[in-house]
Amino acid sequence: MLTVNAYAATAATTPLGPTTIQRRDLGPHDVLIEIKFCGICHSDIHHTRSEWGSQTYPIVPGHEIAGIVAKVGSKVTRHAVGDRVGVGCLVDSCGDCANCRKGEEQHCLKGSTLTYGSIGKDGQLTQGGYSTHIVVTEDFVLKIPKGIELDAAAPLLCAGITTYAPLRHWGAGPGKKVAVVGLGGLGHMAVKLAHAMGADVTVLSQSLSKKEDGLRLGADHYYATKDPETFKKLAGSFDLIVNTVSAKIDLDAYLSLLALDGALVNVGAPAEPLSLNVFSLLMPRRSFAGSLIGGIRQTPASPSTPSRSLASPWPRAWWWTTPSSSSRTSSA
Amino acid sequence: MLTVNAYAATAATTPLGPTTIQRRDLGPHDVLIEIKFCGICHSDIHHTRSEWGSQTYPIVPGHEIAGIVAKVGSKVTRHAVGDRVGVGCLVDSCGDCANCRKGEEQHCLKGSTLTYGSIGKDGQLTQGGYSTHIVVTEDFVLKIPKGIELDAAAPLLCAGITTYAPLRHWGAGPGKKVAVVGLGGLGHMAVKLAHAMGADVTVLSQSLSKKEDGLRLGADHYYATKDPETFKKLAGSFDLIVNTVSAKIDLDAYLSLLALDGALVNVGAPAEPLSLNVFSLLMPRRSFAGSLIGGIRQTPASPSTPSRSLASPWPRAWWWTTPSSSSRTSSA
Repeated sequence: MLTVNAYAATAATTPLGPTTIQRRDLGPHDVLIEIKFCGICHSDIHHTRSEWGSQTYPIVPGHEIAGIVAKVGSKVTRHAVGDRVGVGCLVDSCGDCANCRKGEEQHCLKGSTLTYGSIGKDGQLTQGGYSTHIVVTEDFVLKIPKGIELDAAAPLLCAGITTYAPLRHWGAGPGKKVAVVGLGGLGHMAVKLAHAMGADVTVLSQSLSKKEDGLRLGADHYYATKDPETFKKLAGSFDLIVNTVSAKIDLDAYLSLLALDGALVNVGAPAEPLSLNVFSLLMPRRSFAGSLIGGIRQTPASPSTPSRSLASPWPRAWWWTTPSSSSRTSSA
Repeated sequence: MLTVNAYAATAATTPLGPTTIQRRDLGPHDVLIEIKFCGICHSDIHHTRSEWGSQTYPIVPGHEIAGIVAKVGSKVTRHAVGDRVGVGCLVDSCGDCANCRKGEEQHCLKGSTLTYGSIGKDGQLTQGGYSTHIVVTEDFVLKIPKGIELDAAAPLLCAGITTYAPLRHWGAGPGKKVAVVGLGGLGHMAVKLAHAMGADVTVLSQSLSKKEDGLRLGADHYYATKDPETFKKLAGSFDLIVNTVSAKIDLDAYLSLLALDGALVNVGAPAEPLSLNVFSLLMPRRSFAGSLIGGIRQTPASPSTPSRSLASPWPRAWWWTTPSSSSRTSSA
């Protein structure tokens, strides 16, 4: 066992404090990573505060991990000491169920192992990236390509894939009108990705206070949702709305913005139930859907949708490095 | 103008009674139909009772119309006197908007003209099929193929297309698990169609009282939703659930029955809003959607999905004639 430094909460109400935790000895397929950066995700707060179900304490949060491979198990083939790697929200899954075989390990039918707060195959509680080192089975360790700074790469392991997955699944691309609700950690990623995929991108934010940022990130349009005119003007406009806001919203109002066959996709979830009038879905045919992080296969994959602004099919140069991405990370 | 016999309600609270109404003189593209049968749809009751917004009275309901062409306008090319024809929920639309051009006239962006209770292009209130004759523009008059009795064909013009459209849109077919909630006018159509399309079909009904009918109609499985074990046993099972019940349901419970990328599609709508927990959509990725009747192009179209039981790609022989279909119609 390896004793490493970490920041942990000892209860739902206490702030994080320095502590030490144990990392398991390397199995044949394990990789020891020296963590250089870890993003801070809103869900770290939800989990640490037991807002999404009660947790076992102490808890070390953190699932946007970027670092360097320090040691590998005897049978590891995918990674080598010195490699630049990342770990996202998942550290294991059964690998054998229908969903795992589709590369949707986040929906493993036997339950995937989350980076922290889960019980791993060794029976131990997982602990996350607010720590100096982590041990992860090689299949859940992702390479970080050259040219991407580790601090900028870290938030892609959760916020990036969480917005990329629904944009891909619901076909964001040229000729599609995509709206992003909220311009925070997830929203700014969604804007950059949807723009890079070639969609016409609109930000729907409470006010216009972040309009300049939104347009700089690639939005074509920016509207304030506190202005009721916004909902009149944009009625029936969008093919896809990605809602990154985890607070309660007026679903019927947002659904009214969708065109025929449009989808409103939540990537966040408020704690309380939402209500909607089914007529909002019937006329015209619309969907309300949810999307949860993304699979391991998709996380480092190149998008096949044409990028509007890059020679490379992989729009990393455009969206992997931004002040707002790196401001979300803190050095471990 | 032609004066014809009809049954009308004179107020939201009165029963239907015999009366006479006027049908317009035939324009060059109009078809006069002698109505032989008209289905009785639950929405006739909702409309007549002003339960879906206030109506103008007197109102003649009826939008599952089957009859014989009695006269055609000077420029009509699609129909001839003596043809067996039907009229569904729509009698006109702009024909020019994006949705009409897609063949989704029910979602006409300028507002389609419903068979009754709408203002037509002539500025007159439309009146429906509980009547001896109707005048409809030729594009909204559908041929009824030989071999289908008119009384059995009538309900296909609303209940048939309303269930066919979502089954097609969400890909019901071989290898897909489809559940149908409710075994009434819409539900029994959905069961026959989904079975004919080759899906594995489950009926979810409050009790097992209609189980024999359900299996006879083509269902592979039948469960009572009042038994809580049903929801445990079928958790994560279905690719598509078509909900034909317009009463309030426990959305979270029904969403829990969907597999990854599954959709719960409402073809009915309760008057009150429904509530749901977004986590029901997030884990795994699921959709809640609505589907409203169907387009004119699709109503008489042959399904391209292979039919499991018929040499002909058009499974009409199998599902166009049933006792329960004809029991829903009444002679006009």
